[in-house]
Amino acid sequence: MCAQHTFQVRLASRPDGMPARTHWDMGWNDINGPSDGEVLVETAFISIDPAMRGWLRDAKSYLPPVAIGAVMRAGGVGTVIASKHPDFREGEQVVGHTGVQSHALVPGDTLRKVNDTVAPLPTFLGPLGIPGLTAYFGMTEVGAVKPGDTVLVSAAAGAVGSIAGQIAGIRGAGRVVGIAGSNEKCRHLVEDLGCDAAINYKTEALGERIREHCPEGLDVYFDNVGGDILDAALAHLRIGARVVLCGAISQYNDLEAVRGPKNYLSLLVKRARMQGFIVSDYAEQYQSAVEEIGGWLAAGTLSYRTTIVPGLETFPETFQRLFTGEKLGKLLIQVV
Amino acid sequence: MCAQHTFQVRLASRPDGMPARTHWDMGWNDINGPSDGEVLVETAFISIDPAMRGWLRDAKSYLPPVAIGAVMRAGGVGTVIASKHPDFREGEQVVGHTGVQSHALVPGDTLRKVNDTVAPLPTFLGPLGIPGLTAYFGMTEVGAVKPGDTVLVSAAAGAVGSIAGQIAGIRGAGRVVGIAGSNEKCRHLVEDLGCDAAINYKTEALGERIREHCPEGLDVYFDNVGGDILDAALAHLRIGARVVLCGAISQYNDLEAVRGPKNYLSLLVKRARMQGFIVSDYAEQYQSAVEEIGGWLAAGTLSYRTTIVPGLETFPETFQRLFTGEKLGKLLIQVV
Repeated sequence: MCAQHTFQVRLASRPDGMPARTHWDMGWNDINGPSDGEVLVETAFISIDPAMRGWLRDAKSYLPPVAIGAVMRAGGVGTVIASKHPDFREGEQVVGHTGVQSHALVPGDTLRKVNDTVAPLPTFLGPLGIPGLTAYFGMTEVGAVKPGDTVLVSAAAGAVGSIAGQIAGIRGAGRVVGIAGSNEKCRHLVEDLGCDAAINYKTEALGERIREHCPEGLDVYFDNVGGDILDAALAHLRIGARVVLCGAISQYNDLEAVRGPKNYLSLLVKRARMQGFIVSDYAEQYQSAVEEIGGWLAAGTLSYRTTIVPGLETFPETFQRLFTGEKLGKLLIQVV
Repeated sequence: MCAQHTFQVRLASRPDGMPARTHWDMGWNDINGPSDGEVLVETAFISIDPAMRGWLRDAKSYLPPVAIGAVMRAGGVGTVIASKHPDFREGEQVVGHTGVQSHALVPGDTLRKVNDTVAPLPTFLGPLGIPGLTAYFGMTEVGAVKPGDTVLVSAAAGAVGSIAGQIAGIRGAGRVVGIAGSNEKCRHLVEDLGCDAAINYKTEALGERIREHCPEGLDVYFDNVGGDILDAALAHLRIGARVVLCGAISQYNDLEAVRGPKNYLSLLVKRARMQGFIVSDYAEQYQSAVEEIGGWLAAGTLSYRTTIVPGLETFPETFQRLFTGEKLGKLLIQVV
């Protein structure tokens, strides 16, 4: 047991709308450990994810809410600096729920070893981490993408959407169209990520563009955003379509006022399904999925971007970028 | 060829909201036939179905809209009085799309023979017809009901809902709860149709009652109505739940103002799916389904009610009863 200085971001109060700086307490504290079974990790990168917004709500979900005064929950990668778990030794690199802090005591059983000689560390929070697995199972299992399918992805330049669209292409989709919120992102989708077309939802008439780019309608719509974009997609389903509910970032800051998708009756006329999923339901298949994604990365058929912001103290503003869209690909904080 | 007097109900204009008497033209006309391949049918019972409301809209759907001036499309059963189709002879009983008229010229290839020594004629427009098949495939295929499931059915005293709930029970559901719009219907659900509980959505607090009767949440919700009832059900899904979109009677008279289900994000948290279907997608399995349903009827494990209104001239008001709920089970017009 030894005391370790750690810089922590703790939840000060529950936000009603957009989380602001006032909702967080930040500062240095001492932690004591590791205890038996624990590992002390010096974090290198912290993952900033839409799911974190859900954990701030005082409501039952698949994980309990973050308590007031607790370190904010987050995924992270880093290096073991002390271990009382038989599987981990000083100097090894790991990924897990470290929380938003510079040093973390983590139960060893919840950590997974990674290696920056295989891929840069941020990759294990991106395509080889939860976002990549979410895209993989969402597109292949829930979306059940088939060769020839017409696929539409929202937030297509984001951490999950950018991988989901590319996986659709790799699996033989006939047409992949991405939706994003800037012309720069749209160029990136077509030039770097292999989308057949991209739509800037902020400046273009979404329904018309979907009709133009997908004249036969959508076989798969991979939804990361909810709201008006979900409605526009529902209006263009093909018979037997699959709508993958992966997230609803446009709705997370005001769940009391969620707008239901008024075009949901398309599901009836088009004999379509809309299905939600949680990536952890597929935990038993993680290993084989990671191997397949790793193969695509190595072969260069899958590419990805990261937006890395230095400094844990930027957390309040960096977190907001999930909702304002000021980022490309996976959003991370570099700890030091 | 011979001329035949027939009493017909024709569409005079497209209703915006609830269809009224002014939207229909009624009267006697002459029809000439049958031509080659046609059968002249004297109708006995006409089926009054929610799907008919959709056929009045000038919009693309799985069937084209009924044209202004055309005989209203409807299913019916009756007796062949003349035939130029090799499979049908005078005196045989048939079911098919006869339209709302006393005598109909129908392509023989679209007719199916029935027999009132097997079951009363209205049965072939109910449990042994499209409503029964809709309930069957909706509950068993789309809802994928399993032994032990908790099942909630809306419009549970209606033509489809009453069969769907009973099929859930026959297939081993642990708990079947029905929603209906009167205490009389609720008594019928529990006393005659084997529901474990029934909820009067007009007088009871729907969410509280669902929670009380289904404390573990819903495995299957069979939705015939949409609107607030769909939302209440979505708020009580169990992990892996299936929401069967069979209809949305509460929304059909004002599709411009359809309220999307604001609790749709439950699909995400509960890894649940919401899926629409059209019974005709299962046409190849009709025969085996009819045999199974017929077996249940014969064994007395499946029962049903009909509300029979005499007189084709009552069509405008009888049609409205679909939306006001003033009926029990399958709604029919008896032609003579």
